[in-house]
Amino acid sequence: MTTTNFTIPRSVIWKDDFISLLNQQKLPHVTEYIELKSVEDVWEAIQTLKVRGAPAIGIAAAFGLVIAAHKDSSTTVAEFQRSIKEKRDYLASSRPTAINLVWALDRLIRSISNVQSINEAKTTILHEAIQIQVEDEEVCRLIGEHALSVFKNGDRVMTICNAGSIATAKYGTALAPFYLAKEKDINISVYACETRPVLQGARLTTWELMQAGVDVTLITDNMAAHTIKSKNISAIIVGADRIAANGDTANKIGTYNLALLASAFHIPFYVAAPLSTFDPTVSNGNEIPIEERNPEEVTELNGVRVAPEGVKVFNPAFDITPSELIAGIITEKGILSGNYKEAISTLFPV
Amino acid sequence: MTTTNFTIPRSVIWKDDFISLLNQQKLPHVTEYIELKSVEDVWEAIQTLKVRGAPAIGIAAAFGLVIAAHKDSSTTVAEFQRSIKEKRDYLASSRPTAINLVWALDRLIRSISNVQSINEAKTTILHEAIQIQVEDEEVCRLIGEHALSVFKNGDRVMTICNAGSIATAKYGTALAPFYLAKEKDINISVYACETRPVLQGARLTTWELMQAGVDVTLITDNMAAHTIKSKNISAIIVGADRIAANGDTANKIGTYNLALLASAFHIPFYVAAPLSTFDPTVSNGNEIPIEERNPEEVTELNGVRVAPEGVKVFNPAFDITPSELIAGIITEKGILSGNYKEAISTLFPV
Repeated sequence: MTTTNFTIPRSVIWKDDFISLLNQQKLPHVTEYIELKSVEDVWEAIQTLKVRGAPAIGIAAAFGLVIAAHKDSSTTVAEFQRSIKEKRDYLASSRPTAINLVWALDRLIRSISNVQSINEAKTTILHEAIQIQVEDEEVCRLIGEHALSVFKNGDRVMTICNAGSIATAKYGTALAPFYLAKEKDINISVYACETRPVLQGARLTTWELMQAGVDVTLITDNMAAHTIKSKNISAIIVGADRIAANGDTANKIGTYNLALLASAFHIPFYVAAPLSTFDPTVSNGNEIPIEERNPEEVTELNGVRVAPEGVKVFNPAFDITPSELIAGIITEKGILSGNYKEAISTLFPV
Repeated sequence: MTTTNFTIPRSVIWKDDFISLLNQQKLPHVTEYIELKSVEDVWEAIQTLKVRGAPAIGIAAAFGLVIAAHKDSSTTVAEFQRSIKEKRDYLASSRPTAINLVWALDRLIRSISNVQSINEAKTTILHEAIQIQVEDEEVCRLIGEHALSVFKNGDRVMTICNAGSIATAKYGTALAPFYLAKEKDINISVYACETRPVLQGARLTTWELMQAGVDVTLITDNMAAHTIKSKNISAIIVGADRIAANGDTANKIGTYNLALLASAFHIPFYVAAPLSTFDPTVSNGNEIPIEERNPEEVTELNGVRVAPEGVKVFNPAFDITPSELIAGIITEKGILSGNYKEAISTLFPV
């Protein structure tokens, strides 16, 4: 290995009594880590999207509750538990639709349900928050290892959106193999679709891969077909927002385009996602509701209007990729392929 | 027909002694027609992209030469011809790569090669310029009629870029059938891809269709697959920059994506283009060079940088759609399909 200054960026870093948080709102222009020293700071950071990505939000909220616990001046365990529960409700209100936020906070609450002292409770909450972060990093690393097994030296791989390190504890999901390849001196070039309308690919994926010294080239989403052909793209890998029991995958809008292009060019299309992304209660993709977002995301760029006033806009935030277009779903437990319904039901027994 | 205030916008309008030009640089926010009263005005308008679209540029340049002719104070025919030839060279320098610009100017120069008087020359130049505009409008209208024959009431059709009225004398090419449908009270809904990086779809196609009362919905390019599926898109139609002898078509980047998606969804993909777009000297798409443009088109929006400094960018302006993905090439002479090489060679005998 050559010595470099490259590092894989992290979104949430715990500093003994405060959170050092990468302000994703200022990326890619300014790399700013802000100090969150109160539960209100954490609430504001989540609410204003300074931290994004389901796992990263959960981790930030967990350490927010650690800060609350450290500052708490209750005199009995019951009083402490009530007080922390109030802070949990407050933090949970910062982004009501974020599943991981509530999941992480409730895990901390459960961890102190049987403690004997306030000291024990404070220590337990801290350990549980660290554990959530460590576990997520390990899950991402395992996804990266499995994903790396389907790539080889010299591959050129396309991705969309930001299923990256700064959306998780570290490594990310779809981007994890690129970091592990870099660590192992395996050359993989990444082609990042800019990901309209919110440009997570242009703003975040390019930035974080560049921080780690991974070779990355930015394209607009409509350049995908020409790029696959002219640059000999060998595979496409994306993250997931939700995976149905049959493997149908909801992910950022534009993913379905790429899956169809991969099929047309006979290159494999992979989904990288932790088991927590699977929703076995949903039998197939048709049952996953597609959120439609503000038309201004499409009609305005940097607050400047580009389309005519009053134009009709269709702005779905996600699309559904049918499982038959997916060569493999790469999880921390290995790669699912073939009969997804069977493979997923084995992982999630009723 | 119901009475409306809708009109199909025109880019270049001749007003007896000056050009009224739609300033496309101000669209879609401001509908501004500027008066071009000198050959310098016309040069500047072409050079600064206030007029764009190959036929529209040619028409503007032709009327620019008419202005030059009207103002000319030569006293002999030979002196007049030399003077006009100088103005032709000056106007041709406004956008050196625009083929139609030179084509239109040279047609005017040829028209006065055998005139007997300066008066006859001035009248001839004016008539020839008007003729170029009339012919282009007729070509576009015929393309629109042929294209309309493949659509039916209630169809939802997707397009990309702006192969529209303001790029031609009137009607455009890919957009022509929508205007004719509107005139005939046939309902066709249009889904316009925004067309990154320069956003001709968002800025121009939506605007001009809205002016004419055509139902249009704006999407980002990566929403195409989800939109085709969820909105039941029945066909895709696009323009062309250059068509090879075998039917392979160079057009705005993103066209190839749409052609592959049309194939995946089993819906027809049409190219609408005048015969002047065919280049029978090029045997297939591989021989058409693809211009790469400034990375800033991708990394900056409205002059504000969105991607990291120093990021690598791939910014091809066009892509090539193989003819086997094209259900029909719609020209003023009818619709080509099947064996394109044979059909095209019949239209362009050696």
